[in-house]
Amino acid sequence: MHPYLNIAVKAARSAGTIMVRALDRRDRLGVTSKGAPNDFVTNVDRAAEAEIIHIIKKAYPDHGIYAEESGVQAGTNINNVVWIIDPLDGTLNYIHGIPHFCVSIGIQIRGVIEHGVIYNPISNELFTATKGAGAQLDGRRIRVSECRAIDGAIMATGFAYKRTNETLDTCMARVSTTLEACADIRRFGSAALDLAYVAAGRFDGFWEVGLAAWDVAAGALLVREAGGFVGDFHGGDNFLEGKQIIAATPKVYPQLLKLL
Amino acid sequence: MHPYLNIAVKAARSAGTIMVRALDRRDRLGVTSKGAPNDFVTNVDRAAEAEIIHIIKKAYPDHGIYAEESGVQAGTNINNVVWIIDPLDGTLNYIHGIPHFCVSIGIQIRGVIEHGVIYNPISNELFTATKGAGAQLDGRRIRVSECRAIDGAIMATGFAYKRTNETLDTCMARVSTTLEACADIRRFGSAALDLAYVAAGRFDGFWEVGLAAWDVAAGALLVREAGGFVGDFHGGDNFLEGKQIIAATPKVYPQLLKLL
Repeated sequence: MHPYLNIAVKAARSAGTIMVRALDRRDRLGVTSKGAPNDFVTNVDRAAEAEIIHIIKKAYPDHGIYAEESGVQAGTNINNVVWIIDPLDGTLNYIHGIPHFCVSIGIQIRGVIEHGVIYNPISNELFTATKGAGAQLDGRRIRVSECRAIDGAIMATGFAYKRTNETLDTCMARVSTTLEACADIRRFGSAALDLAYVAAGRFDGFWEVGLAAWDVAAGALLVREAGGFVGDFHGGDNFLEGKQIIAATPKVYPQLLKLL
Repeated sequence: MHPYLNIAVKAARSAGTIMVRALDRRDRLGVTSKGAPNDFVTNVDRAAEAEIIHIIKKAYPDHGIYAEESGVQAGTNINNVVWIIDPLDGTLNYIHGIPHFCVSIGIQIRGVIEHGVIYNPISNELFTATKGAGAQLDGRRIRVSECRAIDGAIMATGFAYKRTNETLDTCMARVSTTLEACADIRRFGSAALDLAYVAAGRFDGFWEVGLAAWDVAAGALLVREAGGFVGDFHGGDNFLEGKQIIAATPKVYPQLLKLL
């Protein structure tokens, strides 16, 4: 394992522990979902992100950071290594105690995502990828599914119209068209884990709008290293900052692209 | 724990072991989702159901059975005890390796569901309920969430239009109206686990059409014993065989009923 990926795994596991402990503490104290849930999750989000950045900075003090809570911290290193961090993807699931959320860390070197980690601290599943070296789940090689036709495919998506400029009608039209064409749609509530599930062959495709770089950096690398295709809604490569992403098996990708 | 519930838990755990072993074996053999997935899941479904019925019949040879695969086996006991069994709820998830499926067993006595078990063999979460004695997750008392207003609610549903007489438009209209009114919608792919999640306060409400008695028998009891409301789309009690179900917190239930 590359030393950078090793540090990313260490940071993800450490942040995951913070999240699970905070949930346990809340459950023990009987703090319900009505008890200032936003303060609760903001505090956990910040503590997890601070822990991740602390671990990275200790190992690589001159690397750059691009994180959901704390924004951009430019690095001074000559290779322009930037760690792209979502400390807690699936915030709403986390607040509600739905056991499906994760830490996502992507490592960009000279503008290219070279390493990625997605970690679900409840299931303890660790997804990792390094560019050119494949994708793994708990150290075992994973591949996208062999699904060839969209009519047998399980698709995942998110309903993002409230945080984007999309109308509800546009969002629903995409769901409706795709649902008619595929076997079924899943909506699990964590874009990073959705991408990891595509990489593991659990979902055959995924699309969402309104996502940020920290939501998709690690997941897009995972899908590509697992043999899948990733792009924007025009089939181009502008998904990291473009707020639109499609990821799927090589055969399903063009069919999904056409539908959307 | 009531002796009936005890046997139901034993049967659910035993069936869960069969499912997990079959998945592991498939993964080891490298059988992909293209390798006759329907035969694979039908065999597992039948083996799990046979195991459950075997355990019940050994303890209570004169009880009735109402199961997804084998249909109705009338009992001869004077109390008319019927075990309502879904050996594998979330079949499509199971085939795809999505770690979200369960065993569901409801025990009906003289026409009333008195005990229920829902077991997820991947997360090892065991949901149990006995009428009048509350609902538990792994032995700890659970309650529906304190959610009062639909605009803060997380709803779960299924897209069942392909196996019902509903049109895609009717299905999508319900999703669209509810999505606009609530915080977000989840679509996890197992109705029984969706109901268990409502009981555990993870989802604030759930609706689906086209479900059978074995999908909802245990889950409906869980929700009611956790303090929630369950009914059909007209607010009546015809959800077990009525193919329509709404389950939610007491405050969210009437709001969701009005929307649908």
